[in-house]
Amino acid sequence: MVDAGRHAPKRVVGSACEVGAAIFKDGHDILAARVRFRPPGEEGWRVAPMTYDFAADRWTGSFQLDRIGRWDFAVDAWTDVFATWRRGAIAKTGAGQDVQLELLEAAELLDQLARRIRFGAERSKLTGTAARLRDENVPQSERVAIALDEQLESLVQTHWMPADLTSTRQLLTVQVDRARAAFASWYELFPRSTAQEPGRHGTFRDAEEALPRLAELGFDVVYLPPIHPIGRAFRKGPNNSLTAGEQDVGSPWAIGSEEGGHTAVHPDLGTIEDFDRFVARAETLGMEIALDFALQCAPDHPWVKEHPDWFTIRPDGSIMYAENPPKKYQDIVPINFWTEDREALWAACRDAILYWVNHGVKTFRVDNPHTKPFQFWEWAIREVQAQHPDVVFFAEAFTRPNKLLGLAKLGFTQSYTYFTWKNTTEELRQFMTEFSTPDVLEYYRGNLFANTPDILNEFLQNGGRPAFRLRLLLAGTLSPLYGIYSGYELSENVAVRPGSEEYLDSEKYQIRQRDYTAAGNLDADIRRLNTVRRDSPALQRADNLQFQLSENENVLWFSKRALAGGDDLLIAVNVDPYSAQATMVHTPLAMFGLGPDDSYVVEDLLTGARYTWRGSRNYIRLDPGVEPGHVFRVVR
Amino acid sequence: MVDAGRHAPKRVVGSACEVGAAIFKDGHDILAARVRFRPPGEEGWRVAPMTYDFAADRWTGSFQLDRIGRWDFAVDAWTDVFATWRRGAIAKTGAGQDVQLELLEAAELLDQLARRIRFGAERSKLTGTAARLRDENVPQSERVAIALDEQLESLVQTHWMPADLTSTRQLLTVQVDRARAAFASWYELFPRSTAQEPGRHGTFRDAEEALPRLAELGFDVVYLPPIHPIGRAFRKGPNNSLTAGEQDVGSPWAIGSEEGGHTAVHPDLGTIEDFDRFVARAETLGMEIALDFALQCAPDHPWVKEHPDWFTIRPDGSIMYAENPPKKYQDIVPINFWTEDREALWAACRDAILYWVNHGVKTFRVDNPHTKPFQFWEWAIREVQAQHPDVVFFAEAFTRPNKLLGLAKLGFTQSYTYFTWKNTTEELRQFMTEFSTPDVLEYYRGNLFANTPDILNEFLQNGGRPAFRLRLLLAGTLSPLYGIYSGYELSENVAVRPGSEEYLDSEKYQIRQRDYTAAGNLDADIRRLNTVRRDSPALQRADNLQFQLSENENVLWFSKRALAGGDDLLIAVNVDPYSAQATMVHTPLAMFGLGPDDSYVVEDLLTGARYTWRGSRNYIRLDPGVEPGHVFRVVR
Repeated sequence: MVDAGRHAPKRVVGSACEVGAAIFKDGHDILAARVRFRPPGEEGWRVAPMTYDFAADRWTGSFQLDRIGRWDFAVDAWTDVFATWRRGAIAKTGAGQDVQLELLEAAELLDQLARRIRFGAERSKLTGTAARLRDENVPQSERVAIALDEQLESLVQTHWMPADLTSTRQLLTVQVDRARAAFASWYELFPRSTAQEPGRHGTFRDAEEALPRLAELGFDVVYLPPIHPIGRAFRKGPNNSLTAGEQDVGSPWAIGSEEGGHTAVHPDLGTIEDFDRFVARAETLGMEIALDFALQCAPDHPWVKEHPDWFTIRPDGSIMYAENPPKKYQDIVPINFWTEDREALWAACRDAILYWVNHGVKTFRVDNPHTKPFQFWEWAIREVQAQHPDVVFFAEAFTRPNKLLGLAKLGFTQSYTYFTWKNTTEELRQFMTEFSTPDVLEYYRGNLFANTPDILNEFLQNGGRPAFRLRLLLAGTLSPLYGIYSGYELSENVAVRPGSEEYLDSEKYQIRQRDYTAAGNLDADIRRLNTVRRDSPALQRADNLQFQLSENENVLWFSKRALAGGDDLLIAVNVDPYSAQATMVHTPLAMFGLGPDDSYVVEDLLTGARYTWRGSRNYIRLDPGVEPGHVFRVVR
Repeated sequence: MVDAGRHAPKRVVGSACEVGAAIFKDGHDILAARVRFRPPGEEGWRVAPMTYDFAADRWTGSFQLDRIGRWDFAVDAWTDVFATWRRGAIAKTGAGQDVQLELLEAAELLDQLARRIRFGAERSKLTGTAARLRDENVPQSERVAIALDEQLESLVQTHWMPADLTSTRQLLTVQVDRARAAFASWYELFPRSTAQEPGRHGTFRDAEEALPRLAELGFDVVYLPPIHPIGRAFRKGPNNSLTAGEQDVGSPWAIGSEEGGHTAVHPDLGTIEDFDRFVARAETLGMEIALDFALQCAPDHPWVKEHPDWFTIRPDGSIMYAENPPKKYQDIVPINFWTEDREALWAACRDAILYWVNHGVKTFRVDNPHTKPFQFWEWAIREVQAQHPDVVFFAEAFTRPNKLLGLAKLGFTQSYTYFTWKNTTEELRQFMTEFSTPDVLEYYRGNLFANTPDILNEFLQNGGRPAFRLRLLLAGTLSPLYGIYSGYELSENVAVRPGSEEYLDSEKYQIRQRDYTAAGNLDADIRRLNTVRRDSPALQRADNLQFQLSENENVLWFSKRALAGGDDLLIAVNVDPYSAQATMVHTPLAMFGLGPDDSYVVEDLLTGARYTWRGSRNYIRLDPGVEPGHVFRVVR
């Protein structure tokens, strides 16, 4: 349960939903319990038995989640009156006691049950048995045998309608997503930068040509910033300058012009048909396209003219632009989600998502969801997923923890994280621990982006290529969901000015064509990381991370348990991009069934290198000029 | 919250109720929040402000619990629209920007507020200010000063009625008990054993004479097994034998005879007036009397004749007696709480409690509550406490953890524990940790009885006087609530047979007169323990226990923090009654503000002995022939 049932925990299709419950009543009667569940789209309930674990004082049961969508479930419990009766009767006959009264009580139970069931044959069987149990001409031992007969018990249990059936106070729901919602490697690119000829505005046709490289590198999701017409009014120039020249392309997040809004394609990128081709090409390559969904408008967005009441009107009649006083963002007008006309507004926002779903987009990276009403997101996500349960929503919210987690609870499938700002081993351990508690993992899936168009962390600015290599390895091994934004593989690390996390010549405001084949690119690192991720079940789940003891604070050392097949992994990353770091690392021997003096071989899945280790404490050395880390499996 | 608000957490009078909440909304508006609370018996709400802790991303507030009973509370939060406006206006004027529109917006806010308030003077002040803010003849700088005036802000905040006031979904409740509900030393005695002349049945007059010794030893609560007439039918003889002789007194838990039931006094104990005198005498001595409340009947209880339908009728018309097949307990007939006539039955049970409350009893030790419906207890406790909020209910339930904790959630003030069966340091640490988590301490108060008439643990049977001494010290230092049953101070340790936890010649079935002045009694131990408990605030709370590192598994080493005044304590107990144990124990230096090489003096509050220690690791040695443990304070 998340917040006592207010929100739905998340699972992926193909997994089991394990349900645990504390079930008790007064006295010593035998209880019985079951999980009742209803797959999405079905009316009827199914049931799975629950069993009692004495040591844990807990009942558990499970059911297989074989399709995506929202599953309802509940726990039912009741007194197993007949089993309780049987236990007593068996104990008494075993002790040679008279059970005449017990037999009469059993007869009464059978008669009660017979009055309630429909089928003649079974009803007769029950009433007939009851009569025999009462017949003192039949020897007691014979009547005991009849009463304790296992077929009778089975008949009774099949038809039993408990008088004290007690259920969870409310229906519970589990949100079941497709596998890629929980395990995927993401790549972010601006299609306008994909033209081969220098200076030309890239198109979807050009972007198609970028896809085979990404597929070959092992990415699953290709995410595009907004692809809509870009506003002209107050358009930003390069490096966020306040005035744009005639040729400046503007920020894709200033959405809308007289050419259209959230359901239009920027004419310079091509047509909607070109977009459809692009989506189909990605699919052919085993990837999918994710679109940005940014609910804000440029002042020349069609909605501003058509629905001025969807925005905030100031006392002079002007439409309020975005600001963070004293900063002004005049190229953006925020939507007033609480407008009188909000029913139409919310529907238009939902329909914009559905438009792109109908063009094959099943993943939306939502821009700054925390600045729009949480109620809106809960509604919109439910509306879309009711029709298309395979749609994934990824929340871009680098905000306070309660808001970040609150959005995940309300329905966002995945969330950004604070990863880019966590660089020391202590920061990483603390951050990952906080967001990996079992309670949080029920509903929150962090997607560790190593950079974004907005975030070039100081660590990357200063640490050069070794910093990019080690942060890539951390992102891709600490989490089943990770991503990078174009240029990362070229170790692009120049900030617009000292102390800023903004890129110089940021792609947000201009076209950035790159030579991805340039020497020193990280393609080999990316390719092998994504391959190891695909081959290792342990890297495909978030609930198996445990930090282990490393004797050098510059080396992060952690385990990822396989849990459901494959190898348990031990992973070391040197978080110092400047120096080689050597340390003793401690193997959790019990995890591998090893004794304190056993020898064993660890194999680095990244390089294939093998080392013979002994006992729990062993030596490693990581030179940032050679390798950022190890991903070990134990060879038995 | 306990179970998302379903149950009430517990506090004691005089403490503060600290309320924390995650409060957030979309965007960057300034929020405000308060705790709303209502003392028991009041209609109106009071409020306490909440403040935001950025690091914890949490709002907190508190209110003082100055009376016992059930307090309701809730959290209210809203957008502080005026503060948000002010923040923007200050930022813009600070940056030299025009704020003409902001002034008009402020005027609109003031006008809106004026329309909603009653008092003419304040309404005029608001509308007048609004008019000034709109008056372009007044220089903007002057209008800004008017709008940002702190008196204006104060006026607005006083009257503000937020449009988005949001409260916790349900009222929450905190159960406030008197101090003795959470901190008390208990002593259990059978009044029939208190006569001075050998063989005579003791009376309340005799029992009065036992009270001064108990007061002098420092006990707070004197608990009596049932004092009602005892059934004759199937009366048990000595050592639970099935047939009682004419002179055998029977078990006080076989309640009721033709002389009366749950509201009668056993004639051999005296009259109700004698009982009243006994209660008054205890009060004079600073103690109180606790009564057993056992909802079961002997077959000759008046209810059996008057209300046979309050019991279970078997098919032959007989009333069902208690059994645990194949064991039979024919001296007891269980009540059928779900009888058709349950309204009258439940009321009679409640009225039995109220009868004794009216005779000065404010504490009830409830016998086997887990074999009666939990719904009944929730109802009965609420009914009694609604009239007498100072009544304490102590649950005797050595049952599965969920039932044990469930009863505490439903309203029991205190609960028995598994303490008697936890003897090794590992068992003690695990048990105390499980029942001392912050979640559990919200509603569960364990009362550590070192023995009971039913439980003479093997550890005491074998370990002799040193075992009794060390278990006493453990009970009284691990928990603010502890107790012993008569004979403990004489190290009575003979079981009815090997492998049994029952006493030989158990006082449950016969009179046991004792010479409490016998050599070797534990009075000195008890007296100093209860004195140290009364003098040490750290021993009076349950939420301050932390196990510390001892290098010898036979020495339990733990800290009790004072938290609200007094000394932090460090406590060592040698759990081996047979041998002296020496060990290094580790002082949590930070707790005492000590550095790693600092010298300090520890003083044993039990003996007054002082030792000079240095750094975190120091030596102790505990000889069971001398002392079972240390209760140290650090002398600075």
